[in-house]
Amino acid sequence: MLSIAQLQQLFDEYAQQQALPPHPAGLYNPVRHIMSIGGKRIRPLLCLLGCQMFTHHIQNALPPALAVEFFHNFSLLHDDVMDNAPLRRGFPTVHAKYGLNAAILSGDAMLVKAYEYLSSADANLLPALIKIFNQTALEVCEGQQYDMDFETTMQVTKQQYLHMITLKTAVLLAASLQMGALTGGANHEQAKVLYRFGINIGIAFQLQDDYLDTFGKPDTFGKKIGGDILNNKKTYLLLHALENANPQQNQTLINQLSDPNANPTQKVAAITAIYEETGAKDAIQTEMERYYQLAFEYLSYLQLPDAQLFNLTHLTQQLMNRQV
Amino acid sequence: MLSIAQLQQLFDEYAQQQALPPHPAGLYNPVRHIMSIGGKRIRPLLCLLGCQMFTHHIQNALPPALAVEFFHNFSLLHDDVMDNAPLRRGFPTVHAKYGLNAAILSGDAMLVKAYEYLSSADANLLPALIKIFNQTALEVCEGQQYDMDFETTMQVTKQQYLHMITLKTAVLLAASLQMGALTGGANHEQAKVLYRFGINIGIAFQLQDDYLDTFGKPDTFGKKIGGDILNNKKTYLLLHALENANPQQNQTLINQLSDPNANPTQKVAAITAIYEETGAKDAIQTEMERYYQLAFEYLSYLQLPDAQLFNLTHLTQQLMNRQV
Repeated sequence: MLSIAQLQQLFDEYAQQQALPPHPAGLYNPVRHIMSIGGKRIRPLLCLLGCQMFTHHIQNALPPALAVEFFHNFSLLHDDVMDNAPLRRGFPTVHAKYGLNAAILSGDAMLVKAYEYLSSADANLLPALIKIFNQTALEVCEGQQYDMDFETTMQVTKQQYLHMITLKTAVLLAASLQMGALTGGANHEQAKVLYRFGINIGIAFQLQDDYLDTFGKPDTFGKKIGGDILNNKKTYLLLHALENANPQQNQTLINQLSDPNANPTQKVAAITAIYEETGAKDAIQTEMERYYQLAFEYLSYLQLPDAQLFNLTHLTQQLMNRQV
Repeated sequence: MLSIAQLQQLFDEYAQQQALPPHPAGLYNPVRHIMSIGGKRIRPLLCLLGCQMFTHHIQNALPPALAVEFFHNFSLLHDDVMDNAPLRRGFPTVHAKYGLNAAILSGDAMLVKAYEYLSSADANLLPALIKIFNQTALEVCEGQQYDMDFETTMQVTKQQYLHMITLKTAVLLAASLQMGALTGGANHEQAKVLYRFGINIGIAFQLQDDYLDTFGKPDTFGKKIGGDILNNKKTYLLLHALENANPQQNQTLINQLSDPNANPTQKVAAITAIYEETGAKDAIQTEMERYYQLAFEYLSYLQLPDAQLFNLTHLTQQLMNRQV
């Protein structure tokens, strides 16, 4: 069985062999740019891990692995345009470097390339893989739409937020595992169980990300602490706080959210304090833990030997910062 | 055999049955908007015609027919953003009506929906259909990139222009026919012949469009005469004129192209005159005729009875304004 590092290397080698055409450079250079600035390649890794749980012949999982990584980067590329983000992983975003039109069109080409890679999978599996991929791709678009919708309304419930992050984040992680499992010879039921694992672990990841954005350690989180608060982002923390605030806390929240000239340091401190006082900090940890446990409950349904689950469990723990 | 009008009705009914989800409305309303403002549905019609040349059971061609229409409208939607176009068929473009972000994301969703419709085709045909669709979709993106590239350079040859319109326009018409033929039971060679027909007729259509933009009759062309000239669009006419202009004509062209304050009426008159003097007007007609004839040469390879070719021939003549 290949280690995570070996799978990563296998994927990188495969990805590098699938060279993009040189021309038109205006179309493909932006694709090369976003694919070259890194990222943890979690989705292709999940795809390969899903496959390796059922077979040692993991070559078949490489096309869908590359497809999900291209799809993920396509969605980042277009999301960065919509969010008007200047930087991605410390590098200029595609629209910042190449302009709006290049960002739109190169993103489109990446989505098509994702389907092209997927189509090079085994013809017998293609109908099932394409069906999963289509549904997932559409759900990711829906998730991004809900995320944008939430920016302009205060009427968002925690339930709606969980639905949004399921679509925007969890389904692609889940589909990566599911498609990998199918290429490894898993039956549809087994693959679906891995999909459910992926959904729950994906929600846990996103809640963890929300939590760390406010309560993480600046030196290990990688991003600036308090970014979500300063962007008035309606995370689980904020929605829980709004639901549970007393009148005074509520007034403080409203004032901070509506004042475009609020002092950033004071804003982060004031809202963080309310997250603690209203129980939002505890609630998000409880919720995260619940999804995390639920994910592993699904995994146990597979009744696979621990050795076959080791890599996936290890990667999950690593991503949840729960390494032992 | 169904008439063109019957095929059109069949397609419209099928398209209406495939309702989009109500939510999120911000994602799907823009899709409903662009799909509702009309268009001639030429690509789905070609798909159904391609199928009907080989079988009376044309139900199988409906999924790819809807796929190509969704793909076509996706490309119009994103092209309108890139061209900053306020109107499409007399209605506000999606970005004008719903904003930039909606235009980007709804376009993405349309591209995914196109694949979703295509995927509902017969599973045995799916690998072949997806392969054609992937290649075509990528080529359309490449064509749009070349079209944008040409805006900022004077170093464009007629050959490069023909390559660009092949990618941007002809391949989708060709692929529509080819996919339709495959769903009708044509073998790969027959389908490929129809593809070649589609490529050549697609180039002829675009040259015809370029010709009419300058030399058409205002009351029948539907668009404003001289639009390409006023936009400095590097059409076949302009490229031929630039290649064949004498020093004085060349100077006039350069002056008109580089003067942002040129009087529109005078600009159109001056450049139109040069198109006639340099032989560009004749050359584009000769070239158009050449591609038109070539298309029908390919069609004759199929050795099908005239009755089976009637609809396709009729539609083609109609679109080339050559009705007898």
